[in-house]
Amino acid sequence: MKKHPLLLGAAALAASCGQEAQQPNIVFFLIDDNGWVDSNVAYGEQQYPNNLRYDTPNMLRLAEEGVRFGAAYACPVSTPTRTSLLTGVNAVHSRITNWTAPYKDTPSDGKVAEGDKLHHGDWNWNGVCPEDFADQAPEHSFIATPYPQLLKEAGYYTIHVGKAHWASCGTPGANPHNMGFCVNIAGGCIGRPASYLGEKNYGNNKQDWNIHAVQNLDEYYSTPTFLTEALTLEALKALDEPISKGQPFFLNLAHYATHTPLEADARFYQKYIDRGFDEQLAKYASMVEGVDKSLGDLYNYLEDKGVLDNTIIILMTDNGAKTDDSENMGGEVFCHNKPLRYGKGSCYEGGIRVPLTIRWKGHAKAGARVTTPVICEDLFPTILEMAGIKNYGTLQELDGQSIVPLLNGKSKESDRELVFGFPHKWKKKYDSECDFIYALRKGDWKLVWRMWDERYELYNLADDLGEQHDVAAENPDIVNKLKTALDTHLADWDSPLPEKLENERIL
Amino acid sequence: MKKHPLLLGAAALAASCGQEAQQPNIVFFLIDDNGWVDSNVAYGEQQYPNNLRYDTPNMLRLAEEGVRFGAAYACPVSTPTRTSLLTGVNAVHSRITNWTAPYKDTPSDGKVAEGDKLHHGDWNWNGVCPEDFADQAPEHSFIATPYPQLLKEAGYYTIHVGKAHWASCGTPGANPHNMGFCVNIAGGCIGRPASYLGEKNYGNNKQDWNIHAVQNLDEYYSTPTFLTEALTLEALKALDEPISKGQPFFLNLAHYATHTPLEADARFYQKYIDRGFDEQLAKYASMVEGVDKSLGDLYNYLEDKGVLDNTIIILMTDNGAKTDDSENMGGEVFCHNKPLRYGKGSCYEGGIRVPLTIRWKGHAKAGARVTTPVICEDLFPTILEMAGIKNYGTLQELDGQSIVPLLNGKSKESDRELVFGFPHKWKKKYDSECDFIYALRKGDWKLVWRMWDERYELYNLADDLGEQHDVAAENPDIVNKLKTALDTHLADWDSPLPEKLENERIL
Repeated sequence: MKKHPLLLGAAALAASCGQEAQQPNIVFFLIDDNGWVDSNVAYGEQQYPNNLRYDTPNMLRLAEEGVRFGAAYACPVSTPTRTSLLTGVNAVHSRITNWTAPYKDTPSDGKVAEGDKLHHGDWNWNGVCPEDFADQAPEHSFIATPYPQLLKEAGYYTIHVGKAHWASCGTPGANPHNMGFCVNIAGGCIGRPASYLGEKNYGNNKQDWNIHAVQNLDEYYSTPTFLTEALTLEALKALDEPISKGQPFFLNLAHYATHTPLEADARFYQKYIDRGFDEQLAKYASMVEGVDKSLGDLYNYLEDKGVLDNTIIILMTDNGAKTDDSENMGGEVFCHNKPLRYGKGSCYEGGIRVPLTIRWKGHAKAGARVTTPVICEDLFPTILEMAGIKNYGTLQELDGQSIVPLLNGKSKESDRELVFGFPHKWKKKYDSECDFIYALRKGDWKLVWRMWDERYELYNLADDLGEQHDVAAENPDIVNKLKTALDTHLADWDSPLPEKLENERIL
Repeated sequence: MKKHPLLLGAAALAASCGQEAQQPNIVFFLIDDNGWVDSNVAYGEQQYPNNLRYDTPNMLRLAEEGVRFGAAYACPVSTPTRTSLLTGVNAVHSRITNWTAPYKDTPSDGKVAEGDKLHHGDWNWNGVCPEDFADQAPEHSFIATPYPQLLKEAGYYTIHVGKAHWASCGTPGANPHNMGFCVNIAGGCIGRPASYLGEKNYGNNKQDWNIHAVQNLDEYYSTPTFLTEALTLEALKALDEPISKGQPFFLNLAHYATHTPLEADARFYQKYIDRGFDEQLAKYASMVEGVDKSLGDLYNYLEDKGVLDNTIIILMTDNGAKTDDSENMGGEVFCHNKPLRYGKGSCYEGGIRVPLTIRWKGHAKAGARVTTPVICEDLFPTILEMAGIKNYGTLQELDGQSIVPLLNGKSKESDRELVFGFPHKWKKKYDSECDFIYALRKGDWKLVWRMWDERYELYNLADDLGEQHDVAAENPDIVNKLKTALDTHLADWDSPLPEKLENERIL
């Protein structure tokens, strides 16, 4: 596993001699709705069968050259993960616990149906409002200092490409420029693309236009350029400016893929059909491989420019793969994230345990796998530490903790309490695997509070990664301890609760 | 008129001592479909009645602090002016003689109707393709080195905000990033906005979406932010980055206003209604004043940042006001550009003689009016000279000549031949004031070749600014000389001719 001991030694030596290392470039490569086992990378203790479905040679290369995290967590849906990344604050604390709808003042919660026992309460459905625009902050938004702003102020050339989804349209947070990005390509309030197809102008068509039409890419209209490819081309173009000037850069390359609508990336689709995949799953597979190719293109570009080894690459996804809908997603329902339980929308592991790999030559131990639990808000202080930015001020109090100490590849015991929550109804019909759930992980224990059923489950993730064996009944003391811990967080953070519980429950 | 003789002297002294001046910042403030007499600025020898219609105190201030050009020319319609600016090549030479349609491979010419004597020939209906993308250049495009690319390579931070309209969607020229801009906000292949209204999401609405929906501004959806204001806010935000770093910047702030659709800028509309304007003209007036306010906001911002006097401001418009359609434009038909003849679409002066003011403290003589004819392609070498960029290479041979020598405020006799052309049918019905016309100005003489009628007109602009008295019959020798000059240009440049003439006429 120790692939580059000499290099690590040299870096340590340089630091000890008081030499300031050059500010590293940073690429945050964020994939959407893409699961823990959706690549060839073994984030688990082994390669599971699902790891072998799609060809992702570049993700594999990244993991071989970087540290991968086997217990990296995000939130069950998109916006909360993205805003936690941006603000360093747990989603349950920022009160952004569900995705932000495109239009302002519009909770995205599933509509109340007859028989619904619970209904969402108050939450920040307008998303994040950046500190500099606090005077324009809408109600139901979380005002915070976004880290790209701090990077920019420290001299970084900051580029956002792709999905933003930090806030609703009609609010300052919809605009990546307001978050500290110099350049924005195709990012705004939307959380999915109307279409991935250049032939369909990414949705910019009179006949089937909707708010999710992707903006900024008219160069590729009526061409066979898949959205993933267009974003990659634009990202690499944008990098020319800082690289030519020797300015450190931060690239937030946030692919819309592999979110629905599933559409075939024609470069890879037929291969998966030939493997016997059903059409929908072949589409998904082609989209995964399209993202992998984007990573490869980025690799090649950085190598060509001679900046690869001074560029940190962080690959992460925003939540687990969507698995509740086989008609749409293809494959076998509820199985996309196996061995994990369920997927997107859920506080079970399939929804929140996600890929995370960090490549940083000379700093991150190549090929190592770290099992210490980490969570999306950790990336805020991590990235700033990597950039050498210290003593920065933020409006918000950070929940995230730097994971730089883990880059040596050594896992550490952790007593840290990680909190997850989805106090919402996700879709039209109540889904017991997703809706109105809070969860807390501490050590190997995971408490799941199912508010709808008014009960608690307990899992030991060391023995039961798939959360199949509820051991709450056998461990009342542990349940009580974790329940108190969860309650304390929710009370301290004034976290959103379903309306009914807001009134009934004293936290 | 000599307002700052001491400052001019100091600048000259500094230059003579061999001190390198700091690279100046440059703002190109481009207004759309806005006529020669649409501001309070007397570009003519006097203020005409039309100069008094709209309140434009900031444009007046700019003229008082800069040099204004009384005989500055553009092309009759949008794209040719914009691509001539971008490439330094006359539109008749680049063969981009009409506006580029949003979609690739689609000549924008008016459809052939029964009885049409002429029909457009071959021209570059896909617009400009930037040199770096030559391998992807579509047919019917003009490959060239755009000057923002040269500014960027010389260290400028280059920002495009607003209308681009250099090329059709689906081609590299649709993307300002490909033209050398680091930042692009709301620019693409479109030539007009679907709506100026934030309340209508600038056209991003399912019910009435069309390709002209303005992109990149979802921060302002469902707010009362008029497009002109949104673009201004975004432009000023984008300037923060280079100003905070002390990097010289080039801002191409190209307003969509005052192009149709006319919509009331609510900040100014009622004032003009109260003055007795009809509704359409009041809308137009409010849009003009909105642009003037944008200029004022820019002034204030640059002053606040302490960079005003090291920032060159160039104000220009892309063609004359549209005057052929009183139902749409309000006011009296054919009168918007009076004393000039006709307006947008025409090679008569109302279509092509446009506002141009350059403010450059210490270099451009405040309050001066220069009458030497200049033309849009001149801005290419002018801007590069102002930026101190010399010996640059371009793929194309430039037709433009630097007008920096005129900034001392002294008009010069000029024997230069300026060529204009619109070998097209503009609208549904043949318009004898616009369609299938070439023109050449030399000294005070202007030859107008009306291809449809197969005849030549001659005007003496010194006596007859309004082109009311055709003196061709009295001056056959001058007509012949100018005709030969025009034919020579068209032959040298392989300029577009109507199909029929392509075959019949030997140039």
